[in-house]
Amino acid sequence: MSDPLPTGATIGILGGGQLGRMLSVAAARLGFITHIFEPGANPPAGHVADRVTTAAYDDLAALTTFAHSVDVITYEFENIPTAALDTLEALRPIHPNRRALATSQDRLTEKEFLRSLGLNTAPFAPVDTAKDLQAALATTGTPAILKTRRFGYDGKGQARIMSPADAPQAISDMAGAPALLEGFVDFTHEVSVIAARGRQGDIACFDPGENVHKDGILATTTVPARLTNAQATDAVLLAARILNELDYVGVMGVELFVTPLGLIVNEIAPRVHNSGHWTQQGCAVDQFEQHIRAIAGWPLGDGKRHCDVTMENLIGNDMDRLPEIAKEGNAAIHLYGKSETKPGRKMGHVNRITTS
Amino acid sequence: MSDPLPTGATIGILGGGQLGRMLSVAAARLGFITHIFEPGANPPAGHVADRVTTAAYDDLAALTTFAHSVDVITYEFENIPTAALDTLEALRPIHPNRRALATSQDRLTEKEFLRSLGLNTAPFAPVDTAKDLQAALATTGTPAILKTRRFGYDGKGQARIMSPADAPQAISDMAGAPALLEGFVDFTHEVSVIAARGRQGDIACFDPGENVHKDGILATTTVPARLTNAQATDAVLLAARILNELDYVGVMGVELFVTPLGLIVNEIAPRVHNSGHWTQQGCAVDQFEQHIRAIAGWPLGDGKRHCDVTMENLIGNDMDRLPEIAKEGNAAIHLYGKSETKPGRKMGHVNRITTS
Repeated sequence: MSDPLPTGATIGILGGGQLGRMLSVAAARLGFITHIFEPGANPPAGHVADRVTTAAYDDLAALTTFAHSVDVITYEFENIPTAALDTLEALRPIHPNRRALATSQDRLTEKEFLRSLGLNTAPFAPVDTAKDLQAALATTGTPAILKTRRFGYDGKGQARIMSPADAPQAISDMAGAPALLEGFVDFTHEVSVIAARGRQGDIACFDPGENVHKDGILATTTVPARLTNAQATDAVLLAARILNELDYVGVMGVELFVTPLGLIVNEIAPRVHNSGHWTQQGCAVDQFEQHIRAIAGWPLGDGKRHCDVTMENLIGNDMDRLPEIAKEGNAAIHLYGKSETKPGRKMGHVNRITTS
Repeated sequence: MSDPLPTGATIGILGGGQLGRMLSVAAARLGFITHIFEPGANPPAGHVADRVTTAAYDDLAALTTFAHSVDVITYEFENIPTAALDTLEALRPIHPNRRALATSQDRLTEKEFLRSLGLNTAPFAPVDTAKDLQAALATTGTPAILKTRRFGYDGKGQARIMSPADAPQAISDMAGAPALLEGFVDFTHEVSVIAARGRQGDIACFDPGENVHKDGILATTTVPARLTNAQATDAVLLAARILNELDYVGVMGVELFVTPLGLIVNEIAPRVHNSGHWTQQGCAVDQFEQHIRAIAGWPLGDGKRHCDVTMENLIGNDMDRLPEIAKEGNAAIHLYGKSETKPGRKMGHVNRITTS
């Protein structure tokens, strides 16, 4: 598939959450039809998609029918079962590719990959047993953080170890899952680069955004981020190295810690990323359309920012503030159409345009 | 219905073209579900809506079922049959209201309404027969333009009369339909005001845009328009008078001719308007969301523009230029998902951000 995907073609999206929803709208803007595959009922993406298949990821017959109905496949989350990928990949192109998924699905593989590129990461060590943890703590010191190698997101599957006495509880929290111990990094702030790579190897990055987390969940992203020119250049260059090395096609989120000694890569996500939502107001081509353009073989947007933006996530009861937010003149509201508000659940976000 | 419509409620939209499509996306951004009613198969709006009813406007059973499935009804076009409105209005609120529709459905009623507000219009006279036309031409002189009173759009149902000798052909072009003769106006350029009025009577206007037509179809809209401060104020004030007089709820497009003697109202459209598409890139709340906010009883966006934009319609073979347009750094592309390209057919538009 070397020609650009023509308008009217169908893009299959694995996952029907808010990222799939915003990908679907972006695809429609370019004249594509979208088909969502999602196990859960009434997925947010389904409200703005042409078709929805409701089936489990181990339903290989449903996956096969889905693949036959689309021209190219992408996804909104990285934890896609291997058997599902085998089935889909035999029938249609999937972007980003298997290696990107495999690398980011496992924190240990990811960290080793980043180190192999000469990039800086937090100190780390794999931990399968209480004994491993003791040895690992000797390497990282405390405080440290124990994380499951797979299936973690938004602070889930993590245990802080402030002193060696916390080790038994942390091991217990992992519930037998393979884990990774990470040493703390003394950083001043976190930024992320939303980078895209097209099918011809062309790369475009959005301006780095500065992230603030609360309770382990992204709270706000602000552009421009506090970075020197040299830091901003470093951030873009290292993101490009990651994408090139993986022969990546699509948008990737690269989270970076800013330290006095340079940038440290926290983690990568092989998909559109919460910290890139500001691009919906700040750029002619936002991260969702950028991803669709990349997987469709279209020219990438150049990533230029035409206004300053602060993105705020609306989490759980933040929705109670909606009537007030709706009165703000500079606030662009993006709700996800989730029927139930739960604590810690991302219900929407607001992009506030801060250029006067 | 005095409380704001809560997120999760369903908005019914009559018409599944590009305006319905962009209304549907805007509604989804505020957490609403959308249901499109459209006689034609595979409507553009259906690709980004939760539900589509495919039925004719005289299928009162289908209209009844549709109305019962939604909380509020709006529309993307003004030529909705009266019987359909009767059926729907008995079951659910419809915004904008009947009077706005009745006024804009008939060019004569519209012109008389505008005159009754003391606003300036082109000279006009109703024409049903060849004899009427002779009398009318004596009033307006030539050149003049004969238009069907109803069902005209994008230059359809119009005949130019450059000299009295063109009269017989013009009458013949009307095919027996009641018509209106309009005298030409000596204007320097055309602008339009996209105005919104909420359920509490609050009004917000976007900055006037300057329109260029080609072959009777809008080609480009540029903001800011060439207007003095006084002209811009006049434009906003007269739009507000129209909306207030009609007790209007929703977005209206008001087309104005700019002349050395002041502003002349060309026509009004009781819906989102092609000349307001620039707001998708220029404002935190675009015209589509503004319309949804109005009919849902939400606070209106303030209409503030944060960047300059030129909107270009992609009509028919303009789509051949898409590969080049996709390479432009400042171009936001909006395609309508129409399966077939035809001459004169609006296939999409491009918003070029012109703020450096």
